[in-house]
Parts: sequence; C-alpha cells; structure tokens
Amino acid sequence: MIEFEHVSLPQRVLFATGGARGNLAGQIETLGARRVMVIAGEGERDLARTVADGLPVVRWHHEVVMHVPVEVAERAREIAAADGVDALVCIGGGSTTGLAKAVALTSGLPIVAVPTTYAGSEATNVWGMTEGARKTTGVDDKVLPRAIVYDASLMLTLPVELSVASGLNALAHCVDSMWAPRADPIDRALAAEGIRALRIGLPLVVKEPTGAEGREHALYGAYLSARAFASAGSGLHHKICHVLGGMFNLPHAQTHAVVLPYVLAFNAPYADDARRLIAAAFDVSAEPGSASDPDGAVTGLNNLRAQLNAPRSLRDLGMPEDGIAAAAEAVLAAVPPRNPRPVTRENITELLHAAWSGTEGTDAR
Amino acid sequence: MIEFEHVSLPQRVLFATGGARGNLAGQIETLGARRVMVIAGEGERDLARTVADGLPVVRWHHEVVMHVPVEVAERAREIAAADGVDALVCIGGGSTTGLAKAVALTSGLPIVAVPTTYAGSEATNVWGMTEGARKTTGVDDKVLPRAIVYDASLMLTLPVELSVASGLNALAHCVDSMWAPRADPIDRALAAEGIRALRIGLPLVVKEPTGAEGREHALYGAYLSARAFASAGSGLHHKICHVLGGMFNLPHAQTHAVVLPYVLAFNAPYADDARRLIAAAFDVSAEPGSASDPDGAVTGLNNLRAQLNAPRSLRDLGMPEDGIAAAAEAVLAAVPPRNPRPVTRENITELLHAAWSGTEGTDAR
Repeated sequence: MIEFEHVSLPQRVLFATGGARGNLAGQIETLGARRVMVIAGEGERDLARTVADGLPVVRWHHEVVMHVPVEVAERAREIAAADGVDALVCIGGGSTTGLAKAVALTSGLPIVAVPTTYAGSEATNVWGMTEGARKTTGVDDKVLPRAIVYDASLMLTLPVELSVASGLNALAHCVDSMWAPRADPIDRALAAEGIRALRIGLPLVVKEPTGAEGREHALYGAYLSARAFASAGSGLHHKICHVLGGMFNLPHAQTHAVVLPYVLAFNAPYADDARRLIAAAFDVSAEPGSASDPDGAVTGLNNLRAQLNAPRSLRDLGMPEDGIAAAAEAVLAAVPPRNPRPVTRENITELLHAAWSGTEGTDAR
Repeated sequence: MIEFEHVSLPQRVLFATGGARGNLAGQIETLGARRVMVIAGEGERDLARTVADGLPVVRWHHEVVMHVPVEVAERAREIAAADGVDALVCIGGGSTTGLAKAVALTSGLPIVAVPTTYAGSEATNVWGMTEGARKTTGVDDKVLPRAIVYDASLMLTLPVELSVASGLNALAHCVDSMWAPRADPIDRALAAEGIRALRIGLPLVVKEPTGAEGREHALYGAYLSARAFASAGSGLHHKICHVLGGMFNLPHAQTHAVVLPYVLAFNAPYADDARRLIAAAFDVSAEPGSASDPDGAVTGLNNLRAQLNAPRSLRDLGMPEDGIAAAAEAVLAAVPPRNPRPVTRENITELLHAAWSGTEGTDAR
C-alpha cells in the first residue's frame, strides 16, 4: 500500500566545482539584491572575500559562534537592520548557515548559502539557537535558503578524517531516513541516491584527498541526506546515538559510524523495501544463502566502513560495558514511531552489546 | 563530474487511497479558505459533490473544455472574482487542472488539485491555453497547486486501456528525463523511482483492474514522471513523437509506446548512468554477452510492453513508410541539446525505420 505525505520546499540548488563565485553572483542578481550582508567565520574571511568578490556588499560579518548563541544572533540582526541589508550570503559550515537563518527568522531576508562543509543545514527549514546551555530549535520556511551554491573545490581544505566522519554521519541520515517516522517513498528514493553518492565519494576522498570527484560525490550525497532527513525525521539510529552521546559523552560522528551497521542489521530483515534500496545503492550482490543479510545491505555498509577505516566499537570510543543496561532503558523510552522492527529490552540490549564489542562487520574485513 | 542546477517547487503531496475527502478538507482548512470554487467537468459532477462534501463551497463550476480555450478561462476568472472566491479546488484530469491554473495565473488564488487521471499537470508550474488553433503555454509558480490530493480509488473508473496508454506515456517521460536538456541527478533519481512504480503498477492494472495496488503504483509513478519531466524538459523521445504526431496525425499515447524502446536502444550505449538506472528500475539482470543492451534496460522495457500488449510498430498506427525521410529531416532539426548520442540523418533514419517496421523487442516476446 502506498500512503504518504511529502512536502517539497522551494529552493534552487546550483552545483558546480569552481563555480561558486559566478553562481553566487547570478543568484544575487536574480534576487535583485543591492545591499548584501556576507556572514562568514574568521576562518573563512579570505575565502568569503574571493567568493563574494564583485557583489554589492554593505557588511562583512565575521562573528560566527558554534550553536548560534542568542546574543550573537541578536547582534547580527541589529547590524542587518541598521545597514538596510536586503539579502544574506552565508559562506561556511553549519554554524554560519545557522546564524544567517537566525537573522532571516526575524527579518524575513532571503539567504543564499555557500557551504564549505557537509553539514546539510542549508537544505532544511530548521533553525536552532542556544541560550546558555539550552538549545531551542524550530521549523520555519523563512529560514530556508532561497538558493544553495555548492562548489566542491571549497571543501578541499576540509581534512580527510573530518570529511569521512561527516560523510558517515550523512550516510547514517540516509539509512535512517528509510524507516524514520515521516519517511515517504520520495525520501527513500533521495536517500538511496545519497547512499550511492557517498559510497562512491568517500573512498575517493580517502584515496585522493585533493581530487574533485570524491568531494563532489560526498557533497552531493550530504545534500541529499539533509533533504531526506529533514523530511523523514529521526529514526532509531539517531535516537540511539543521541542517547549514547548524552549519557557517555561519546564523539558524535564516530558514534554514528560505529552504531549504523548494527541498526541496519537490526531493522533490515523487517524492512524489505528499505533493505533492497540500500543494498542496490551499495551496489552489492548478496551471496546466496546469507539469511541474515538477504540482499547484502549490511555487507555493503561494512565493506565501505572497512575502506574508510571507520571506528569499530563503542568500547574503543570509551563507553563502559556496564552502561549498556541504562542505555537500553533510555533508548526503549525514545523508540520512534513506525520503526519496522518492534524494539524490546532484550533485542536493544543485544544490539548495544554487539556495538559495544564491535562484532558486526568482522567477516567483511 | 557532477554539475547541475535543480529547482524544487513548493508543494504538499497527500497520497492515500480512499483519503481524498479527508485530505482535501484538511488542506482547505490549512489554507484558511472560506469561499471555495470547485472546478470539475460534467463527467466528474457527482464525484466532485462527494469529494468536496462539507467544504465551504460558494461555486460549483462545470464548464471544462479540452486544451483550456481562452474564453472558457475568462468566464471562470470572472465568476471567481464575482463570487469573492479565496481558493480553487480542481477535481479531474489535465483540462480541469489546466482551467484552475488559468484562473490562478491572473488571480493568484491557491489551488488544491484532486487528479482523476495520470495527466501529471498538477505537479508542474506549466500552464496552457488555446485561442482558436493556437496554443500558448507558459511557466509561472502562481499556477503550481499548493497541494495535490491523490486517491487511487478515484482512478478506478479510468478504463484499463486508457490507464495503460497514459501509464506508458508517463514511463516515456521518465525514460526521456534521463537525458533531456535540463536533466539533473535528482530528476534521474525521481525518474528511476517512477519507472520502478510504473513497472510494478501497469501490469497489475491490466491483471486486476479494480485492485488498488496497481492503480496506486501507476498514479505514484505518473506523479514522479511529471516532476522529472517538468524539471528536465523534453528529450529526444518527445521531440520524435511530437514530429510524428504532427506530420502523420498519429495517436499520442500509442506513438509514445511504440517509439520509446527504439530511443532507449539508440541512446543507452552512450548514456552509462542512465542505462544502469533504467535497468535497475526495471529489475532485470542482463544476460551475459548482450553487447547491444549491456544492463538489460531495453529488455526490461520490452518485457513490460509485452505484458501490456502495447502497440508494436508505427506501421500498425498508420504511418506511411515513405514518410520516414521527411520525418528524419524534421527530427534532425529538433534534436534537443545534450542528447548523449550524436544524431545524424543516417542513424535517425535507421531508428525511424526500425520503429516503423517494429523490429525491436521481438526477442523478448
């Protein structure tokens, strides 16, 4: 039975290696903007001057802080208003895009985003700000950038290890989007395309860090993962990682990399369509008789992880074994609706224990 | 190399068999509309009363004419203005949606579309009107329905033969979107998903015309084909069918059904990615050694056509053999940019002759 609700958001995506400056200029012209505020962190100061060269910039704004503190957002909003800004350009990663969104949220100003990481925030209508330790997030179409200018050459300075970690995070978003609460067939098709792109791109980034092909595929895959995730919501994988990160202060991206194959192996036998889509995207043919992995989805993921030298166990990341029981309880309380496999204390404990000891994927190595 | 521009249009899609009335009511409520104009042809008069039951309807409008004559559009516009309408609901096929778009074009009124055919117009920002024999078309985001309410049970009265014909037309849009002038990787992913859905749905429609499963898949595939086609533009296949239709007055859908495998066989060896996507969507494994069809894309299409008893040759449709030369000239003048295989007088003549005599796909039967 096909039954779904899918919302497409209005956005123009321009993707061209080496094309950032030209495509950005084109979008500012399309907007008819004459008073541009460029938001870029200190680290992207020079890059911003190059990419935004020739634009009618009235303000270069470099106060970018992680998690967008409210007072930082307020200062940027006041400056934008005082300068009579009519368009925002953000050049950077998630925090930079996040600041532009905070300004757009209250001003309604249009954003053109030029990402320099695989964060994906540029493809969503989700905003977030922090006040002290408290994070507030929300959804508002006003904060969705009108256009994204992707240029893989801007990623060349991103270290390989960080590229792989955030690429695996994007991959986790794609896989988890297959069974997340609001997952629809269009999300699944985009997520499958994202898996395909990341599967091609990430090993190339490792093999040839300065080559465009790997970076292009990884960036394209990260964009798709953001779209699929924003539409489908958080699935079981993300709930588990969220619990583990909070309880044991584990590193975000590495936790995703370790946990993903266990969640895939857990759900796959209960999610025929998702499993086949994932297997096809990994381009593996299952060996006959592999009852636990009929289409080779898990094998495909583990082959990729082996190529990328991804971390293998929660134990290696510093999680204590005696934390498993409490983590299982916390996950059990947070299981998202519509997960294909019913989650019980027993099977989630088994999953966590396997991820802790790193049993999955040993065959594929 | 990955280089593209992709535009997502803002639209909500609600897909649920038997859900039309509830989902339509929900969308009218979301819009806050209080004075609804329902547009539905005479044939959908009763259906419209059922589906729109309970809405704040101030006008039922049943003057729907094929190709949206300007004077018909003008009358509907005047009525909408006179009645102080604040939302349009169209229930029907392409001409009904087209009339609602004509009203939205000048009034900016929001549309909620409830399709009863696989026309696909509801998923695009393209409008068209006719003045005498002259057709004017245009692109305007104002005419894109805010929401589409798909309900496969509304398709049950569509005759099987017509369902198959328009399903094959949708399939042609999907295949042609792989190499059309503005085709981007996202169009291709959606088109591949559309092929998959149509490949599953159309044989089921034939086998069990009153079943929901076939109609759901066909409808879902038709929606994707419209999205892919609207974004990617007309490829070689559509240019050929347009030429043949105009020169020899051949039936639209049947011409598409005959010509498609020849264009696929023509382009496939020059379009690796497209070919593999199409083959995977048809779920065929190529037999080893099939040099002319390495991934089985053509075989997959011909298997489907055989199941559907699709027409086999332009000769059967009444095209004269001595028209091939003139058709080849006309196609040559209309070859779209970026077709993967260079088109010459010789190879297009060969293609047309093969389609005329119906040689392709005989093995698969």
